[in-house]
Amino acid sequence: MKRRDFVRSAGAGAMAAGSLLAGAPAVAAGKKLRWKMVTTWPKNFPGLGTGANHLARLITEMSDGRLQVKVYGAGELVPAFEIFDAVSRGTAEMGHGAAYYWKGKSQAAQFFSAVPFGLTAQEMNGWLYHGGGMQLWQEIYAEFGLVPTAAGNTGVQMAGWFNKEINRVEDLEGLKMRIPGLGGEVLQRAGGTPVSLPGGEIFTSLQSGNIDATEWVGPYNDLAFGLHKAAKYYYYPGWHEPGTTLESFINKAAFEALPKDLQQIVTNACRVANQDMLAEYTARNNDALHTLVNEHQVDLRRLPDPVIEKLKAVSDEVVAEIADKDPQARKVYESFVRFRDQVKAWHDVSERAYLNARAGTAAPTRC
Amino acid sequence: MKRRDFVRSAGAGAMAAGSLLAGAPAVAAGKKLRWKMVTTWPKNFPGLGTGANHLARLITEMSDGRLQVKVYGAGELVPAFEIFDAVSRGTAEMGHGAAYYWKGKSQAAQFFSAVPFGLTAQEMNGWLYHGGGMQLWQEIYAEFGLVPTAAGNTGVQMAGWFNKEINRVEDLEGLKMRIPGLGGEVLQRAGGTPVSLPGGEIFTSLQSGNIDATEWVGPYNDLAFGLHKAAKYYYYPGWHEPGTTLESFINKAAFEALPKDLQQIVTNACRVANQDMLAEYTARNNDALHTLVNEHQVDLRRLPDPVIEKLKAVSDEVVAEIADKDPQARKVYESFVRFRDQVKAWHDVSERAYLNARAGTAAPTRC
Repeated sequence: MKRRDFVRSAGAGAMAAGSLLAGAPAVAAGKKLRWKMVTTWPKNFPGLGTGANHLARLITEMSDGRLQVKVYGAGELVPAFEIFDAVSRGTAEMGHGAAYYWKGKSQAAQFFSAVPFGLTAQEMNGWLYHGGGMQLWQEIYAEFGLVPTAAGNTGVQMAGWFNKEINRVEDLEGLKMRIPGLGGEVLQRAGGTPVSLPGGEIFTSLQSGNIDATEWVGPYNDLAFGLHKAAKYYYYPGWHEPGTTLESFINKAAFEALPKDLQQIVTNACRVANQDMLAEYTARNNDALHTLVNEHQVDLRRLPDPVIEKLKAVSDEVVAEIADKDPQARKVYESFVRFRDQVKAWHDVSERAYLNARAGTAAPTRC
Repeated sequence: MKRRDFVRSAGAGAMAAGSLLAGAPAVAAGKKLRWKMVTTWPKNFPGLGTGANHLARLITEMSDGRLQVKVYGAGELVPAFEIFDAVSRGTAEMGHGAAYYWKGKSQAAQFFSAVPFGLTAQEMNGWLYHGGGMQLWQEIYAEFGLVPTAAGNTGVQMAGWFNKEINRVEDLEGLKMRIPGLGGEVLQRAGGTPVSLPGGEIFTSLQSGNIDATEWVGPYNDLAFGLHKAAKYYYYPGWHEPGTTLESFINKAAFEALPKDLQQIVTNACRVANQDMLAEYTARNNDALHTLVNEHQVDLRRLPDPVIEKLKAVSDEVVAEIADKDPQARKVYESFVRFRDQVKAWHDVSERAYLNARAGTAAPTRC
């Protein structure tokens, strides 16, 4: 189905959902509501799935149970990649996922999750809440009868697990790597072969040599997944996902039927969940990295400068081409890139300069 | 007054406030509460004061007006540096400030605001919410009948405005700089002369040559303050305040008298305010830095490596000595330093490595 057709039919769906509620008054005072939250994660998946649980609990607690949210893992109510449609048509009131999964519906959606050489978590929040990003996101999802919010962040991810050394740009040639999305497109254009694999097949594919490498998330999730048992080298930094934003989206008609205070509670619960997941990853990744390096003797390596430069040049091309897909994508691309360039200038003298100062001259930098 | 005496008298005050409410039932359903929030900031001060306003508005909106919070600027109800005592004894229910102001009451409090060569904003959130920091903060403030929360962050600040060039360690000798707190102690031990000045006297002191330098916040606040008209050089990074956490604290008896849902609303409103202020600074500092450099031709400079190394070595000494002041300070110091060392190892391969990768080889690093 073409994007335009999709928008038309989704729009009709949203209108239908809206009309169900159109004549209804706002939710009566004292009435208890029960919402379903469908997610793209396995139930209780550490960080991502538990973040969705946390969000549901926050809403229930702040509303004193007036709005109770029940979480469904991927496949429990609808399959992972059908949650967008399910919430759009009102099968569930909320969803929890990541916006890059919906690029088939809107190319622009990708800017709200992870962009190669894009924004870090802190920068994403600056763009979304005070740089015009959230308004753009709302415009796009409104076409599907959805209200989007940021609801989690992994921080900078790792480049991934490799069984081949990456010493020079030529080592990317023919590299078979499980890497989805924009990162995969970049790898392909840099000479590699991106492979699509469901989570359950990654470990054995890596171990059997069917693939040379895989990206996943970061130490906390990767250690639990056991990837260190199937690969030799753990490369950084995660150029392809520098601050992956998780999302929650809400059926627009259901949201608008809420009294104002519950709307505020839902919106702000998402903001707390957004911050809390990043804080959790920031704390947990430490311990996991320590375990990987010191107990499992993982060989931690930085991608060499020329490889980073190559991936960066290709990333800029790939990301710029999204803008050519449709006018909405261009509008979001321009806002995103303008913000990135400005915040980069600021963070070069603040976050980056400070982290380098704290690391000391002896620490490895990029020179 | 010695700390022990203070704790004793504050404890008595908290007990008195507690006993006022001890026999009272929890706040009756449907009853509207009005709280006062006293702050250390001038009313509506951009970023800090507006952050306090935002927090008050969030609580009022999420509670549908059941808990209305009114903000008082510094001096409106009590002077800036008396808000801690005022909330402790129940004159106001909430305060908004920064924990380093209360080191006279608890040396350990300093770890919850800004520590030279300490944690960035993202790292502070990791420590507070998932690294044991918040529990320690709660233990300390409980002695004063207060419940602390993080309620804002400026991100990495600037090193400050200088009329003398800092080219080598010796240039710190005799440097008269307005720099309060731990940063001032570090400067003194590095040969400089820290000066204490109220905000209103900084500009003229800098212009008249009475002081050689001053730190303030970052581009957003500094531009509004007009400091570029009184100094030539704008140095970075803000080694002394790498992620200054603002706080809100609540009278413990007043907090405990709230129904559970309002407690959740207050706690989570603080978390949203915490995140939002950082997002605002992240977005606003960009524009202000751009204006300072391109319209006002500000001479932006990085502190030279040997100066940074010197300040770092002295900072480590000064911060370690806080631990010797009392057992509570030692406990917090040990938790803080353990977390910093681990998160530093993680951020060396994630946030720092990524920011350096994005900046490219041509960008100035510390080599």
